[in-house]
Amino acid sequence: MRIGRSCYDGKAARLRQEVMRLSRGPIDYSSAGVDYQRIDAVKVRAQQAARSTVRHLAGRGMRELERSRGESAYVVDVGGTLVASVTECLGTKALVADAVRAISGRTHYDTIAQDTIAMAVNDLITVGATPVCVQAYWAAGSSDWFADAQRMEDLVRGWQAACDRCQVAWGGGETPALSGVVEPGRVDLAATCIGTVPSGRLALGERLAAGDAIVLLAASGIHANGVSLARKLAERLPGGYAARIGDGRPFGEALLDPTVLYAPVMQAVWAAGITPHYCVNITGHGWRKLMRHPGSFTYRVDSVPPRPPVLEFLERELPLEASEAYGSLNMGAGFALYVSRAEAEATVRAARDAGIAAWVCGAVEPGPRRVVIEPLSIAYESDDLKLRA
Amino acid sequence: MRIGRSCYDGKAARLRQEVMRLSRGPIDYSSAGVDYQRIDAVKVRAQQAARSTVRHLAGRGMRELERSRGESAYVVDVGGTLVASVTECLGTKALVADAVRAISGRTHYDTIAQDTIAMAVNDLITVGATPVCVQAYWAAGSSDWFADAQRMEDLVRGWQAACDRCQVAWGGGETPALSGVVEPGRVDLAATCIGTVPSGRLALGERLAAGDAIVLLAASGIHANGVSLARKLAERLPGGYAARIGDGRPFGEALLDPTVLYAPVMQAVWAAGITPHYCVNITGHGWRKLMRHPGSFTYRVDSVPPRPPVLEFLERELPLEASEAYGSLNMGAGFALYVSRAEAEATVRAARDAGIAAWVCGAVEPGPRRVVIEPLSIAYESDDLKLRA
Repeated sequence: MRIGRSCYDGKAARLRQEVMRLSRGPIDYSSAGVDYQRIDAVKVRAQQAARSTVRHLAGRGMRELERSRGESAYVVDVGGTLVASVTECLGTKALVADAVRAISGRTHYDTIAQDTIAMAVNDLITVGATPVCVQAYWAAGSSDWFADAQRMEDLVRGWQAACDRCQVAWGGGETPALSGVVEPGRVDLAATCIGTVPSGRLALGERLAAGDAIVLLAASGIHANGVSLARKLAERLPGGYAARIGDGRPFGEALLDPTVLYAPVMQAVWAAGITPHYCVNITGHGWRKLMRHPGSFTYRVDSVPPRPPVLEFLERELPLEASEAYGSLNMGAGFALYVSRAEAEATVRAARDAGIAAWVCGAVEPGPRRVVIEPLSIAYESDDLKLRA
Repeated sequence: MRIGRSCYDGKAARLRQEVMRLSRGPIDYSSAGVDYQRIDAVKVRAQQAARSTVRHLAGRGMRELERSRGESAYVVDVGGTLVASVTECLGTKALVADAVRAISGRTHYDTIAQDTIAMAVNDLITVGATPVCVQAYWAAGSSDWFADAQRMEDLVRGWQAACDRCQVAWGGGETPALSGVVEPGRVDLAATCIGTVPSGRLALGERLAAGDAIVLLAASGIHANGVSLARKLAERLPGGYAARIGDGRPFGEALLDPTVLYAPVMQAVWAAGITPHYCVNITGHGWRKLMRHPGSFTYRVDSVPPRPPVLEFLERELPLEASEAYGSLNMGAGFALYVSRAEAEATVRAARDAGIAAWVCGAVEPGPRRVVIEPLSIAYESDDLKLRA
């Protein structure tokens, strides 16, 4: 993972060397079992093969929206109806729930369910899609996993509640027992969301333009990205998940605050007559994702939202430099909307009316593809985010 | 799991007692880590919660096809277009590939990819849907898993080839590294398939009728169901996966014959002007699935297809009674089409023209919901297959 290069390189390198000398050592993603560079190479190879299969659609009077490749959801025109789909994984957040249950006495699988659905729904809406239905994927280490009545009740109830909040139909799902593939006592949770896109709302990047405002939507906490880092930290913290963070809450419980479901915000924005030019779900690459669009634009951020206490705690205790923290975690901004300057304040109001704090935090400028976070003297260059083949 | 009751109960019970007395003991699904009864209870609870979310569709001018709940794919009418979707898991077959690679020198992930896509596509087509796109889900135990270049190449190539064979667009996917959730060195493979259903082809069970013929399509081998049993057997067999089965092939390699993709057969059947009244993908409950339809019908089978040598081997070596074998495994029939008697032979011809052997093996009769396999004196009663809430 390369972050914080260019004019900030020297400073970052010195800081990193200093950090490396500390006896307890820094934790980075690679030591936490996640190597994004390696995963990204696989993604690129698979993307190339995937592209070759598109020809099958033409014979049926269908076509893919080619720009949706590389975006957060795939869109196919099936005879005039635009169908979007995405499959997303929770990640390892359920491991935190399993550990914290021993402290809190709650399973936390109601919020874990919300996290899982959020991973898929928050991706789907970026292309302008209305979520229509969700397919569940709950793969356990053995049948025993499903016999924990309280945990199952919480998972089912939370899944249903998240569907209700996103106004999406829970269509079905798969509940395999995968002894030897999934760890004993664990579950691999994922969700697929399918939606339709009114053609006027399609947001695959064509409309993004210099001059657009960047509106950031509040995150509730870590969401479900950076959890491997948090787990590593818990292992060495005195008190582990019971350690108190800045606001006095236990670390583990704060980590388990569920990911915000942004579908109601999008509905409110659309209902206000605003069609975002582009949207980004801020997940695995943190604020580097602000340059998710492939075009040559500079994303200049002039103010940053408040950091949730659990992310402040992570940044301080791991420790992470600011460029690493903002390059890996959401740091208080879980979703970005790029809208015309004239609609920026109305977008913020629509989000707040839907119950989510929002801020106009910057603007899109002509220039090389990069993200500049001015208040923190951080810049991410184009090479720091390679998602496309 | 209850199978082989009714008039065959006494015989089955005596045989089972005899088998239990054998020192090596029988292997059943429960000792292999798969307890379908437990999983089915979870499915029922989740299905009830899922049903409650349907109300969200009406406000958008959409509706679900209620009968699709409990069928193998979920169907929503999104403003006149019928969209079907299903998420399915490979199961544990990749563990066989991992073990056999040491013997054969091949990764076998090309065929494992086909198995995974078959799980989803073969379900999707049962409702009359044309497969449109596939989302991949490859969740590994760590990033290292993706670094095995030969295995990745095979997986990607096999995935692409299976998409080509089903004429489906590979839309994208998710490739997480899930240390602590997925076992080290392992991968949890799943696929989501999305399709559209021409309204005249919709097959949710309304048309199934007494007098319909049952056409069975050939399986290539074990496909991807019953693999846990096969793995248990390999553990105790002298020679393990290298043991020779009836036709002289190594057991492990025969297990890895990929699941037949039935989409080309369905295309050929539809192209022949035949609209099946109902279809069943024969997977986790073996031939009990022949009574997948909730109605009161008796499915009388008067001839059985040849058993693939690897399934004969399993039946003999585990050992399984015939009622257990046909109640758990495909036993040579991977897919069932229920068509009018007048179209039965044309259905068989269409399948054979598409390269898959097929047979008219029985008929649907008025009567209690049960499957009777006459040549083997087996009957499965309604209670032996409970899939719906």
